[in-house]
This record gives sequence, C-alpha cells and structure tokens, in this order.
Amino acid sequence: MKIHIITIGDEILIGQVVDTNSAWMAGELNLIGARVNYIHSISDNVAAIHTTLDGAMDDADAVLLTGGLGPTKDDLTKKALADYFGAAMVFHQPTQDWILALFERIGRPVKPEAIHDQCMMPANAEILPNKMGTAPGMWFEHKGKVVVSMPGVPSEMKYLMQYEVLPKLKAHFGGKPIRHRTILTVGEGETVIAGRIASIEDNLPQHVKLAYLPAVGQVRLRLTGIAEDATALERELDEQAAAITACLSDIVYGFGDTTLEAAIGKLLLARGLTISAAESCTGGHFSHSITAIPGASAYFKGAVVAYDNAVKMAVLGVREETLKNYGAVSEQTVLEMAQGARELLKTDLAVSISGIAGPDGGSPEKPVGTIWMAIADKNGVWAQKIVRGKDRLSNIQYATIQALNMVRKLLENT
Amino acid sequence: MKIHIITIGDEILIGQVVDTNSAWMAGELNLIGARVNYIHSISDNVAAIHTTLDGAMDDADAVLLTGGLGPTKDDLTKKALADYFGAAMVFHQPTQDWILALFERIGRPVKPEAIHDQCMMPANAEILPNKMGTAPGMWFEHKGKVVVSMPGVPSEMKYLMQYEVLPKLKAHFGGKPIRHRTILTVGEGETVIAGRIASIEDNLPQHVKLAYLPAVGQVRLRLTGIAEDATALERELDEQAAAITACLSDIVYGFGDTTLEAAIGKLLLARGLTISAAESCTGGHFSHSITAIPGASAYFKGAVVAYDNAVKMAVLGVREETLKNYGAVSEQTVLEMAQGARELLKTDLAVSISGIAGPDGGSPEKPVGTIWMAIADKNGVWAQKIVRGKDRLSNIQYATIQALNMVRKLLENT
Repeated sequence: MKIHIITIGDEILIGQVVDTNSAWMAGELNLIGARVNYIHSISDNVAAIHTTLDGAMDDADAVLLTGGLGPTKDDLTKKALADYFGAAMVFHQPTQDWILALFERIGRPVKPEAIHDQCMMPANAEILPNKMGTAPGMWFEHKGKVVVSMPGVPSEMKYLMQYEVLPKLKAHFGGKPIRHRTILTVGEGETVIAGRIASIEDNLPQHVKLAYLPAVGQVRLRLTGIAEDATALERELDEQAAAITACLSDIVYGFGDTTLEAAIGKLLLARGLTISAAESCTGGHFSHSITAIPGASAYFKGAVVAYDNAVKMAVLGVREETLKNYGAVSEQTVLEMAQGARELLKTDLAVSISGIAGPDGGSPEKPVGTIWMAIADKNGVWAQKIVRGKDRLSNIQYATIQALNMVRKLLENT
Repeated sequence: MKIHIITIGDEILIGQVVDTNSAWMAGELNLIGARVNYIHSISDNVAAIHTTLDGAMDDADAVLLTGGLGPTKDDLTKKALADYFGAAMVFHQPTQDWILALFERIGRPVKPEAIHDQCMMPANAEILPNKMGTAPGMWFEHKGKVVVSMPGVPSEMKYLMQYEVLPKLKAHFGGKPIRHRTILTVGEGETVIAGRIASIEDNLPQHVKLAYLPAVGQVRLRLTGIAEDATALERELDEQAAAITACLSDIVYGFGDTTLEAAIGKLLLARGLTISAAESCTGGHFSHSITAIPGASAYFKGAVVAYDNAVKMAVLGVREETLKNYGAVSEQTVLEMAQGARELLKTDLAVSISGIAGPDGGSPEKPVGTIWMAIADKNGVWAQKIVRGKDRLSNIQYATIQALNMVRKLLENT
C-alpha cells in the first residue's frame, strides 16, 4: 500500500512549527505494512490543495491529509475537498451534538448558531469521530483511491489514526501478513548494540528486517517480517527476538509498546515496593515521567524538587557542610538527598538527581552536563555520575532515563 | 522569491527522523523575504529526484535540496543532479585537499583513492565550501532558476545556508519584503478568540493575512504581510497587532518567539519574586515546565510533589479533616496545599494543583478531568476549578498551562 502524506498549513512553510506529525504517521503506517512514498507540505490554499491532491492520487493508493480543519477562517481544507470531489456541504447532526456536549461539559456552553459552519461536511465523506477535539476526521473513497483528512493538532491526529484510520486502511487494503517484534533497550547507543548483535543481524532471512529506533538514552530494535504463512512467521520472529534478547539481556527492559516508566511501575507493583524522588536539575521531570503512567499512585508517593540549596537542607536534611565542602553537584549531596527523600516521604526506594543542566553554570572541574544521581533502599545508597553536553532539555531527559535505569537495575537484582 | 524545499532520504519517510531542517530553512528564508511554497520529502531514488525537481522548477524561483550527499552508498543526489542537468562529473581538487586535511587534523589520515568519488562533482555546479563536514554544497543555475544542494546533517546545512546560500539568494533575487507579527494568547480557544476579533479580521487589508496556531491551552495569532514598502508594512502590522492585542489584553502574554513559562520567568525577575509549587495530579510537570527555562533557579526555589495524601499532610501540612471532609480534589485542599508550599519553601508565591488526571478514578460528582488549583501570595490564596476530558497527558499539560496562567494573571495585576 503506497501512501502520500499532505500537511496543510502556512505555519510549517514559514518555519514556526516543525512537522512532527508526518514522522509519527510514517512510523505507524510502516507497522501495518504501508509505505510512505512522499510527504508534501503545502500552503492553506485551495489551488495548492487541489493540485497536490491530483499528483498524490496519481501515485498513491491512499492520501492522508493533516491540518486545516477547525473552527477558524484559515481552515479551508474541508471546503477544498468538497470542491475537489464535486460534493455538496451538508449539515452533520452528530458533530453538532458532540461539540455542544463538549462545551457544556467544560462549563462553557455555546449556541448552535456559533458552531454551524463546523458541522457542515462534504456529502461524500464518511465522518470519523474525534474524541480529542471538535473537528472530526473525514474518509473519502474516489476513483479506487482513499483520501483521509484529519486535524493537524498532534493529539487529535494520533487519536484518529489509532482508532479510526489505521484499522480502516488495514481492512481496506490487506496484503501479505506483516508481523513485528520490538525489543526495548536502555543504557547503550546504536553503535554498541549493532556490534553486539552483528552475527544475528547478518544472518537474518531476506523477509525479516531489523530497524534501530533511537531516542534519548534508549534504542528500540524492531524486527519486521512479511510472509504468506502468518503462523510460521510469528514463530520465526519469536526465535530471532529471543536470540537478540539473550545477547542484550543486561540492557533489555521490555517488549512491544511499553515504556521504561511503565516497566518500572510493573516491577514495583510486583515487588510491593514504593518509590519517591529528590530532584534538583531535572526540576520535576523524573516525577512527571513516573506519574505519566496511569495507576502510578499505587507505588509513587511523592517527591521534593529541591532546586534551591535552602530546600535541600531544610526539607531533605542535606547537611550544610556537605554542600559547602563538595557542592550541590556531588556524590555526597545526592547520597544525602536520596536518603532524605526516603525518610521524609516514607518509601522503600528513593532516587535523587543533581547536576548542571546548562546551557550555563559549568566550571572546569564540573562542566555543564555533569549530573550526579543516587538511589537509596533499606540496604544502603548508591551513586553514579554522567557527563553530557550543553543542551538543557536533552540533559534533563537523559538524566531522567539514567535515573529510571538505576531503579530498573536495582529492582531486577532484588 | 518563491522557494521549494526538497528533502531526500528514506529515514524521514519511514518515520525514523523528524525533518527539523525544513522549518529552520523556512524561517531563515522568510527573514530575507523569500517564501517557501512547498516542502517535498522524497525517497533516495533518482527517478523521484528527477520528477520532483521537474515539478518544483515549474513553480519555484529557487529549489533547495537537502540530504543524499555524503560518502555512503545511499547518497546519490549528486549523480542524479548531474544526470538531470546533462552535465559530466569532473574531479574537484579543492574538495580533495579539504577532505585530506580534515582527516589529517583529527589524526585519521586517508588515502586520496579512498575519497575519489567524494571529489567528483557535476561540471555545471558552483561548489560551496562546507567547513562543517566533507560534502560541499552545490549551486546550479538552469533555465533561469536556481537549484542548490546541501548535506542533510543539520549543522552542515545550517553552516552552508548562513555563509553561502542565503547571501547568494539575496544577491540573485531581491523581491517584495515579507513581515510577521505573532501574538501569544493563553486561556481561550480559537472559537472564542475568532469571535472577539471578528471585526478586525474582517477588515484586514488584502496583503495581510491572519493565522490561528493552536496548542494545548494556548493559541498563537500570526499576522503576515507582503508589500513593496517595508517601512510602511512594518507600521501597518504594528497597528494591526496593537488592535488585536487591545481586544485580547486579558489573554495576551507575549509576542514573537517566547513561551508562557519564559514570560512568567521574566515577570517574576522584574518584580523580584520567588515561586514554589505543590503538585498532586500534575506529578512534577508544572515544576518541569518552569525549570525547562534556562536561569529558572533565580526565581524557582522548589516544589513538593504530594502524590500521596500522607505526603500532603506530613510535608505540606494539609489537615486530615480537610481531606476527610472535602477530598484531595477540592478547593479546600488546594488552598491548604498552596499555603503549605509557600511556608515550607519560603517563597513569595506558591501554586498548587490537585485533580483526577485519569483515565480512571472519577466519580459522578468529580468526573475524570476535574482539577482544582490555587495560588498563594502574601495577601491570601485563591482557587479555581477546571474540567477536562479523560486523556491523562492532555489533562496534565492543560492543568499546567492553566496554573501558569494563574501566576501570569496575579503578576500582571500586582
């Protein structure tokens, strides 16, 4: 199945917004065996939409549009599509019901007249309900091709893709069975991993491919197989995945769709343990990562974001001499922070992080990107140091992943 | 000057890499009065390069290509361009000298034979030296149009744009000036804003356009004007932006490129005030947002993530009766949390947030998405309630934005 993506919106063409939607869509489409051949970013302009659609429909089996759906005047995709297909605009009652209920629910009711235009849809569209916003998706079939239009807001686009568009595309097209196995690793980079599994990778059969999907501090390994016999393919992928996992057992934290945070949550639940944190340079990001997982309240009790040294002393009980003799970014300080959090917040484990996130504030002995972290449990407390670059957000994210990995290692060894 | 950008590389089409180059290039091109009409992302494939180039050269004055230049096997842009222009490949001595010196300097000298192919260039190209890497840029003029090819590595592309391509484009073309004004708002949606500024929007002159750029809890309004007279255009845009700002004064927090967190940071610095937080359902995300801004330590002292009720009581001093009588998600609880954080962390202001982030855990009286928040200062403490949907991450983000907005409102009125 060949796909073209068209993103509509001047905000991309003037460089105010980076198009992250297309990469996400391309990744998801790959998983159902579809291939994106072309991504077009074009202006909010009827002629541009029509011309691009013409070219895309010549080459692709399906064309996915994002952007240009919504209540305001710069949203003209809907009408451009109706024109393109020669379809009338008709009133769509379920959309009106949905939008009225949505505004009612958030305590800001609107009059039906105010949203009338938002409820007008091309007559030939199948309407795809959008639970994340006001503008629904639209599914068109035209001259044997599929055209889908979605809002450009990432959360709304992702919802529609997951619950409507991907299942419908799969049902519509079909093809040879495709199966995937994803192995999740943390703590090593692509190059090291590729070296460790080189002999497995070199001997993969022709119909199985391995992709490295790197993110900050983590690499996902995805095996993709295509074959007539789904059962044999499943067995084959299981074997290859087992071989890779055995080779990388120290850095594999899970499989499939989970995250490191969710994997740690499961480990904590299984062992009946609770956790807390004392954060300095990560400023709440470690706690945010843990609590982004539904049900985290069963094991996460709380944290102290001790940005200021006064808070490190008064709330976490870090000693003044420690800060004076070793500094806030030191092994001694994170050891005391972790112990302080564990006592104050009464948890089985406690993690602490203190570093120089940047872009400024470093010194020759402690350059920007120097980050200490520790973990405390009933048996003691251990620290480690990492050194990264000057990018503040990347340092915050990387430190969070490394601290989560300390928790994982401790839990897997207990 | 109309521009098309073509990015070449399968890594974008399979979703492994987000195309950040194009947005950066578009932003820089805008500043010299050029307009990007189209961004094409295509495969590493000669036929795709030729077809796309044909279409792009029909519409654009200049076509900028990135990607597909470099030493590895999938880099074929250079030859595809030579074929397209019917040019021979010729040896380019300065490129050989540069690459040999580069490897010499990093202590890994190479033989001239090993880099021979990298030094072959289309005969009709003007070679643009690349001080950040081995592959130079190429400038072509063909049938009155300009075609430029650059490596896809962001640092190399940026170097070539800044020192070679932008100055040459400016000298080559000229063209009508384009200017922008961006107005940043928080707290109202697109529909409400469009209603409030309808009379201004309806009376905008033909050569000025208004775009709505929504994100979670925020909308950016962007005015774009094109005119012969840059000075008059600047004045005109300033007037229109001032009129819109006056209409929306309660929700405008800034202009141009800043963020709400950065705007609040500036307000706090200007007033010499410090801030802290007590977070429950946002789990550290509010503190993370504040501390993502470089220099936040000047005004942010710390936070307590009080996920568990025991932490709300023991650390923040929320009374047991309050939690028993009103629950953790209540006006009374967030009032006590904010006051508790302000006292414990010794700051001028303190923010608190407690809600049901979801997806589970609601009740008929307090459905998922019910979130209370409060702000305390030396004069007292104030609370507000919001009600959102069932998406956990969206609730966390939205609550953070609303809490930041409470801080903004309080600071702007003091």
